Amino acid sequence: MSAPTWKWFIEYTHPTQAHMHGVERFIYSGQTKYQTVEIIDTDFYGRCLILDGKIQSSQYDEYIYHETLIQPAMILHPAPKNVMIVGGGEGAVLREILRHPSVEQIVMVDIDREVVELCKEYLPEWHQGAFSDPKVQVHYMDARKYLKKTDEIFDIIFMDLTEPLDDGPSYLLFTKQFYKIASERLAADGLIALQAGSFNPRLIECHAAICNTLTTAFPIVRSYWNFIPSYDSTWGFALAAKTLDPLQIAEEEINRRLKERKITELKFYDGETHRAMFAIPKDIRKAKEQEKRIIEDDRPLITY
Amino acid sequence: MSAPTWKWFIEYTHPTQAHMHGVERFIYSGQTKYQTVEIIDTDFYGRCLILDGKIQSSQYDEYIYHETLIQPAMILHPAPKNVMIVGGGEGAVLREILRHPSVEQIVMVDIDREVVELCKEYLPEWHQGAFSDPKVQVHYMDARKYLKKTDEIFDIIFMDLTEPLDDGPSYLLFTKQFYKIASERLAADGLIALQAGSFNPRLIECHAAICNTLTTAFPIVRSYWNFIPSYDSTWGFALAAKTLDPLQIAEEEINRRLKERKITELKFYDGETHRAMFAIPKDIRKAKEQEKRIIEDDRPLITY
Amino acid sequence: MSAPTWKWFIEYTHPTQAHMHGVERFIYSGQTKYQTVEIIDTDFYGRCLILDGKIQSSQYDEYIYHETLIQPAMILHPAPKNVMIVGGGEGAVLREILRHPSVEQIVMVDIDREVVELCKEYLPEWHQGAFSDPKVQVHYMDARKYLKKTDEIFDIIFMDLTEPLDDGPSYLLFTKQFYKIASERLAADGLIALQAGSFNPRLIECHAAICNTLTTAFPIVRSYWNFIPSYDSTWGFALAAKTLDPLQIAEEEINRRLKERKITELKFYDGETHRAMFAIPKDIRKAKEQEKRIIEDDRPLITY
Amino acid sequence: MSAPTWKWFIEYTHPTQAHMHGVERFIYSGQTKYQTVEIIDTDFYGRCLILDGKIQSSQYDEYIYHETLIQPAMILHPAPKNVMIVGGGEGAVLREILRHPSVEQIVMVDIDREVVELCKEYLPEWHQGAFSDPKVQVHYMDARKYLKKTDEIFDIIFMDLTEPLDDGPSYLLFTKQFYKIASERLAADGLIALQAGSFNPRLIECHAAICNTLTTAFPIVRSYWNFIPSYDSTWGFALAAKTLDPLQIAEEEINRRLKERKITELKFYDGETHRAMFAIPKDIRKAKEQEKRIIEDDRPLITY
Repeated sequence: MSAPTWKWFIEYTHPTQAHMHGVERFIYSGQTKYQTVEIIDTDFYGRCLILDGKIQSSQYDEYIYHETLIQPAMILHPAPKNVMIVGGGEGAVLREILRHPSVEQIVMVDIDREVVELCKEYLPEWHQGAFSDPKVQVHYMDARKYLKKTDEIFDIIFMDLTEPLDDGPSYLLFTKQFYKIASERLAADGLIALQAGSFNPRLIECHAAICNTLTTAFPIVRSYWNFIPSYDSTWGFALAAKTLDPLQIAEEEINRRLKERKITELKFYDGETHRAMFAIPKDIRKAKEQEKRIIEDDRPLITY
Repeated sequence: MSAPTWKWFIEYTHPTQAHMHGVERFIYSGQTKYQTVEIIDTDFYGRCLILDGKIQSSQYDEYIYHETLIQPAMILHPAPKNVMIVGGGEGAVLREILRHPSVEQIVMVDIDREVVELCKEYLPEWHQGAFSDPKVQVHYMDARKYLKKTDEIFDIIFMDLTEPLDDGPSYLLFTKQFYKIASERLAADGLIALQAGSFNPRLIECHAAICNTLTTAFPIVRSYWNFIPSYDSTWGFALAAKTLDPLQIAEEEINRRLKERKITELKFYDGETHRAMFAIPKDIRKAKEQEKRIIEDDRPLITY
Repeated sequence: MSAPTWKWFIEYTHPTQAHMHGVERFIYSGQTKYQTVEIIDTDFYGRCLILDGKIQSSQYDEYIYHETLIQPAMILHPAPKNVMIVGGGEGAVLREILRHPSVEQIVMVDIDREVVELCKEYLPEWHQGAFSDPKVQVHYMDARKYLKKTDEIFDIIFMDLTEPLDDGPSYLLFTKQFYKIASERLAADGLIALQAGSFNPRLIECHAAICNTLTTAFPIVRSYWNFIPSYDSTWGFALAAKTLDPLQIAEEEINRRLKERKITELKFYDGETHRAMFAIPKDIRKAKEQEKRIIEDDRPLITY
Repeated sequence: MSAPTWKWFIEYTHPTQAHMHGVERFIYSGQTKYQTVEIIDTDFYGRCLILDGKIQSSQYDEYIYHETLIQPAMILHPAPKNVMIVGGGEGAVLREILRHPSVEQIVMVDIDREVVELCKEYLPEWHQGAFSDPKVQVHYMDARKYLKKTDEIFDIIFMDLTEPLDDGPSYLLFTKQFYKIASERLAADGLIALQAGSFNPRLIECHAAICNTLTTAFPIVRSYWNFIPSYDSTWGFALAAKTLDPLQIAEEEINRRLKERKITELKFYDGETHRAMFAIPKDIRKAKEQEKRIIEDDRPLITY
């Protein structure tokens, strides 16, 4: 028998729900200006990045999270050139966007320079050198301020944020007011895609409220989801658009575009995966219909 | 603030992975001839049935597990009359089958009479009186012995088993030899549907091996899956058939059959849910292709 | 290997300190008018009584707690006749007091009748029938009110209380005002003995404050202590007196009195144990000297 | 409220007993040739050294463990000159021994050079520079081999070992055969003092067996003990001697010798503490009498 496990990372998702991850080795532990950071090696999922006590991504399954966030919007857009990322410190969203040959410029705005520096050092399998790509610019500042000031127009904006925790750095990037600002900086066929809260039916209110809020700024809003093993949960995403609809693209067309763009290394996303992710079980559809909340700056969403 | 939680059910899925459920009240705790039984009330998922330390189903989400196991096969079959259940102690599979007006007889064979009696007493929301339906017969014995002796022919056999634990009561019901016996007791357009292990990509070998083993006895074998919140995991199911294929039925036809059979109370299953469940993400498809194992009586599958 | 443990009682003693007890069986779980009650069977310490999430005593080691609370004062007093107990729901303090042949009357005042009834039913090894002894009267009411009204005079008062938790039933029985009331109901050579908080040097402030507060009402106040295994901690007690001093009785005299009173069944207490319990390590002596707090009704002591 | 704790060190002392320590920061994690090493900063006890999953000592309470191990023997001996330490990697035993002005030479033999180097770097409050004292020699080798080969004679040998774990580095230093070797290297009034297992009455067999085994080599063997907060348990020690008896030294004589030797900085040990530590509660005395086991090389003691 191998040695017993005595180091644990315990992630609480509710006062009476927690997940225990046996830790092989603690790599880094610190506090930035905005959040606590831990980098750990677990026995089960390999290296993990933890911000404010929540796993952001793991070495074993980050491909699922990052392909899910990035690829549906990138494929749905016929030729994305100018892309913005809000957050995205690990650099894996850069890596996924850079697979698409039409991309000319990526502007990444992350408030926490220290987290980005730590990811560059400790998570090389995530970014795979993407930060050095000449198409990439990184700005360390509040993304809302950046968007308010800039006059750039983007084809796609990706929101790769931590959950909106009380006093955390992200909760004002989930509001109606923010989505209006974002919409104004998108092209006529522009898209926004975001991680959008737990998809556990028991906790679906957050996801539902985010989708409701997106409808105040975008005519097309679609939920999608999948299972992130290291979160021990299904996770929700949202894709909102001015004209393009992810429910209107055929599986075959997805596979054709991937081939045309010579994207062969994806581990998770293709036409069949797209079908699975955008089909919503009946219970969630019902629960979403019942939730009417719109998130506003002065009534923000705060999760546990 | 409510009182702190000091009673916990900790379910280990691996030596370094566990899930903690805060317990409101312990309802029943005992040992039958075959397994340990706990019935607990949790704060998050309500009442739970636990066999040999594994949550079988929870009050909050049992509809997901039971509709998933039962409805795809029942809907795919044009008019199921004679149905067998192996296991199924909670009685919720009976409830789901009895929704279909064509059903004339259900034979349930469960080895553990004590578990069934406990479920009758403590889980009334699960069975909703189904055990008293005149179409239902329950036999308390080994299902393999039952199938070997009987000369009945079934339209569908459902396998609602605990995981194949070492020394547990179910591991000889997951083998090539067993599936051959089951196939011989199915009608020419017969189907078998079963819970088939974790669908977490990190633990997919069991599910893959079960599917491989089914192919030794059935020409059509399809994986399907969804997320069971109280398992903190996606879970795999399999549907194997002599002629009918769940990938060949249209969403609209599913909704039409549900309507025709006057089944309106389902919370989880419908055409769109069917689409989600039978679309398999690319990583799992790849992993399944690589696993070649066939489970045999003398080399059984044992999970943690 | 025996089955893995999946039921745990986790007792928090601080936000970052907890003890995990594997549970064999949950026996009772409920809420009285005053507190939550759990009775559990653990693998390691047998049956345990838990009030508001704190182990009160365990089958394995209740002899340590109860002999420690009761025997030093009973032996120090030359012939205790009239004894009062505040709290003491398990009935084990009755059992310990009744060993002394001089005892004529025991008045037990416990606020929580439901807890006493549960102990009578579920903890027979604790009380061993003591509640039926004709010398015993039990009153279910607030002990402070009882003492204010009565004109009885006691030789010894024992305080067998839960810790002073916020909103718990006991915190007004640890104050200067209460000790004055108690002192007035004690005979000229009367004694009071009480459980008096953790003796862990890291948490010694509570114990020190209780001792300080006792000095406002009694000329002699002595700390004593021992290790209660099921608490995973040393625990403090206090003996306060008008004239008798537990530091002035010789080991041999203790053993002589035990013999004279024909008390042969004690498992923990005798002369040598007395010596160990009343000798205070230097670090605790120093820490106690530094703590000046006096507990008052309007500034009560509240523990975690 | 402070941030929730999500990093935990969980120390199992039995399959159904564990203690959870919230971790502020993981400082070091590695594997030497002999054992795993963790150095962590906890919220409650400060920095801790953990070998093979067991806390060895904590910043907050190491004074208790180290004064207890060292001072009774050092004080009991009228003028110790030549002292040996087996184990003792933290360097705190050196610090304690060096307080005594009669000491001329200390030979420390520790098998694990890497642990000693880590302690030098990460635990400066423990050793306080003692490794650089010219009276100190450190040998990195098996202590049993060292004692067999050397012809030195010591006044006192201290055994500061990890628990005898299966495959751990220390289990052959707890046997009858080893104590005979040690006895031969002690002066005519020589002493040996050692940590000697849990003093929890539920787990007292190990301590009892160690004491029994010492009696095969020494005419005087005394148990002593105290509570080590970071172990969440009382811990046993043993002092064995050829002529000197720790039960025969008066409290006043202890205080006198401390003063004479100008030792004023002790936080834990003095005459009253000595009295507490060498008085053994009745239950432990009884349990020790019942345990007859002698530990031999071919039937070693292995703890959980």
